[in-house]
Amino acid sequence: MKAYKDLSKDELLKLKDELTQQYEDKKALGLRLNMARGKPAAAQLNLTMDMLDTVNSASDMLASDGTDSRNYGCLDGLPETKKLMADMMGTNPENVIVFGNASLTIMYDSVSRSYTHGVCGNTPWCKLDKVKWLCPVPGYDRHFAITEHFGIEMINIPMTQDGPDMDLVEKYVNNDESVKGIWCVPKYSNPQGVVYSDETVKRFANLKPAAKDFRIYWDNAYVIHHLYDDNQAELLDIVGECAKAGNPDMVYEFASTSKVSFPGSGIAAMATSAANIADVKKTMTIQTIGHDKINQLRHVRYFKDINGLKAKMKAHAEIMRPKFEATLKVLEDELSGLEVGTWVKPYGGYFISFDAMEGCAKRIVSLCKEAGLVMTGAGATFPYGRDPKDSNIRIAPSFPTPDEMEQAADLFALCVKLASVEKLLETK
Amino acid sequence: MKAYKDLSKDELLKLKDELTQQYEDKKALGLRLNMARGKPAAAQLNLTMDMLDTVNSASDMLASDGTDSRNYGCLDGLPETKKLMADMMGTNPENVIVFGNASLTIMYDSVSRSYTHGVCGNTPWCKLDKVKWLCPVPGYDRHFAITEHFGIEMINIPMTQDGPDMDLVEKYVNNDESVKGIWCVPKYSNPQGVVYSDETVKRFANLKPAAKDFRIYWDNAYVIHHLYDDNQAELLDIVGECAKAGNPDMVYEFASTSKVSFPGSGIAAMATSAANIADVKKTMTIQTIGHDKINQLRHVRYFKDINGLKAKMKAHAEIMRPKFEATLKVLEDELSGLEVGTWVKPYGGYFISFDAMEGCAKRIVSLCKEAGLVMTGAGATFPYGRDPKDSNIRIAPSFPTPDEMEQAADLFALCVKLASVEKLLETK
Repeated sequence: MKAYKDLSKDELLKLKDELTQQYEDKKALGLRLNMARGKPAAAQLNLTMDMLDTVNSASDMLASDGTDSRNYGCLDGLPETKKLMADMMGTNPENVIVFGNASLTIMYDSVSRSYTHGVCGNTPWCKLDKVKWLCPVPGYDRHFAITEHFGIEMINIPMTQDGPDMDLVEKYVNNDESVKGIWCVPKYSNPQGVVYSDETVKRFANLKPAAKDFRIYWDNAYVIHHLYDDNQAELLDIVGECAKAGNPDMVYEFASTSKVSFPGSGIAAMATSAANIADVKKTMTIQTIGHDKINQLRHVRYFKDINGLKAKMKAHAEIMRPKFEATLKVLEDELSGLEVGTWVKPYGGYFISFDAMEGCAKRIVSLCKEAGLVMTGAGATFPYGRDPKDSNIRIAPSFPTPDEMEQAADLFALCVKLASVEKLLETK
Repeated sequence: MKAYKDLSKDELLKLKDELTQQYEDKKALGLRLNMARGKPAAAQLNLTMDMLDTVNSASDMLASDGTDSRNYGCLDGLPETKKLMADMMGTNPENVIVFGNASLTIMYDSVSRSYTHGVCGNTPWCKLDKVKWLCPVPGYDRHFAITEHFGIEMINIPMTQDGPDMDLVEKYVNNDESVKGIWCVPKYSNPQGVVYSDETVKRFANLKPAAKDFRIYWDNAYVIHHLYDDNQAELLDIVGECAKAGNPDMVYEFASTSKVSFPGSGIAAMATSAANIADVKKTMTIQTIGHDKINQLRHVRYFKDINGLKAKMKAHAEIMRPKFEATLKVLEDELSGLEVGTWVKPYGGYFISFDAMEGCAKRIVSLCKEAGLVMTGAGATFPYGRDPKDSNIRIAPSFPTPDEMEQAADLFALCVKLASVEKLLETK
């Protein structure tokens, strides 16, 4: 395959005609496809239906410590639920608070609490002139939406194959007191599938923040969400590493079972130091009478332990893997050698990240849409929805069927080609 | 019975000796009783165990509009859940947002959102020098804890048998722009069991707030929580009344199934105007990916409709009523005529409110505690925990068994007598 950039103007014009014809043919099919949603397919949800039988009218509803899971009380989670979530995150139960149905809400509430009441006795952020936040890019749009909602100035940090550019992270965190946090998805990052290297984690743990209330928001969303039985990434335990480095209070870690059991009906947790837990609980005791303990019991009795969670994730992977592979095969077959985009094969998580030629992402997404394929909006993976290079596109292969996924990937590749040719013609 | 205040010093001294002896005898029994907790008894929780079978591995998990209740999506609640909660509150589904497991959290989040982002475009409260709040007293300590947590200045408003003193409410709300809210438990109020009269509700709906962002926090916690089949209180629909009065945006109403199904595992909702719903959703869409829809489905399929809820509340009442009546009988038998306290027989809700002689509440609670009976702390029913008369005590008869309740009430009455005699002797 010849790279598009090496084609002459005439060759490009001819190619454009061919691609346009193919595109019009596709459009005529009236497809209705969606690669935007990072949500499990129905087949995955079916995997856990028997969890709904686990707690029933005949069940003993007492937790291991005698708590009646049906009544008020127990602010921070049943002991066995803390243990399960601790094992999931690779930390200790005493570092864990179990919350409600989503880690996103814990993150929002953590930013909100810092804004209204401050972190561990420091000035509430609403009283500060300026609060800044580091955002490894590309990243997760819902993270950026939270910091934007609170008027926090977001600073892009480029991702490398080992995690965020740590030179830049250190420069900002260690020197600028207004930098109060950083969004991280350290394992199978959203959208690139990057796993933070041991060195990256250790450099995080050894930050010397200018701000006493700087916190790493460590969203371990895909902690056990492997796609393969082998090639499973290992990530250092950030809570432990921070403690070792003399920075025990510097991190909030988050995880949930949203993509293990049921999105919206799972359980979510935070792991952090004793001092942070005490600080969080001061607000938590005002905000809630406690979370859904029956659902906590349901999860623990169904999964039993970390091995139960892992076994379920293996079943998820068997459904997810063919979709990822079908997508990657189409990208490989259709685009390799053309030099119109790059992508990385992920070993876990929910996404494939595609980097188009500069200035092409919006056009690609728009071409897809016109032909019946909904993609995540171009720019969504950047703060304020602004991708400076207009290049990154997030592909979510989980929700469609494998057949739909192949159709969708095919159409996507065609749109990439067409947009790239258009772009190259602009300067010929 | 002769009123204690009419006894001579000698009579009081003799009485004190007798009561002290009785008290020491009680203390020697080593009782462990609790009338502090407004939580359902295990027998009540057993009433709803079969709800746990309603949604199981064989269930159709699609909601009425085709939403897969197991997956992401549906920010404001399944249509059938909105309908159920609307019927519970006596309003329309389009006025309802279904939230998570507790109305307290909705209230906290509403205050927090107003503090960080303002109400419908008005200045966020964190940017104001002063925010004030009206607190009908005695009231609910967890309400007061929320406003205290945000540094909001709380102003006591005396309760009457028809609800809060509306002259005072109107004076503050209609003239002071820094008054941004009022806590109300309009039906079977916590702790007095007062039901707001139609006139009170209409006067609320016709307030002319100085502040555009003033909101009534209408915590309809006991909306269907009657103790009797007859004598069921009716309350006007505040959302409708506010609309009629040209104040559609002035109220947030809250309710939950916490004391219908399971505390902590129920569903909670807010009812308000379209404009407020749009305003709330702006933040909600950042804060959550949606609440637990499987639990919503479980509730709707189990209760089916408002009649299902009402039938369940009848069964709850049959368990609660004997405890209330046992308590009231002891108070009547032991204290009537002594003029050492007043109380009102409630027809719903979870509490009996007792007003001791001025300056006696703390002493009574402390005497109870010493003899093994935990009561809600004296002062808890007032903002900042300060009862200016040191008089009000909240009695929660729901959790103990009827036998325990009778024992507890007996001990309580004895402590009331002893503390009253001590108080009268101070001035003889």
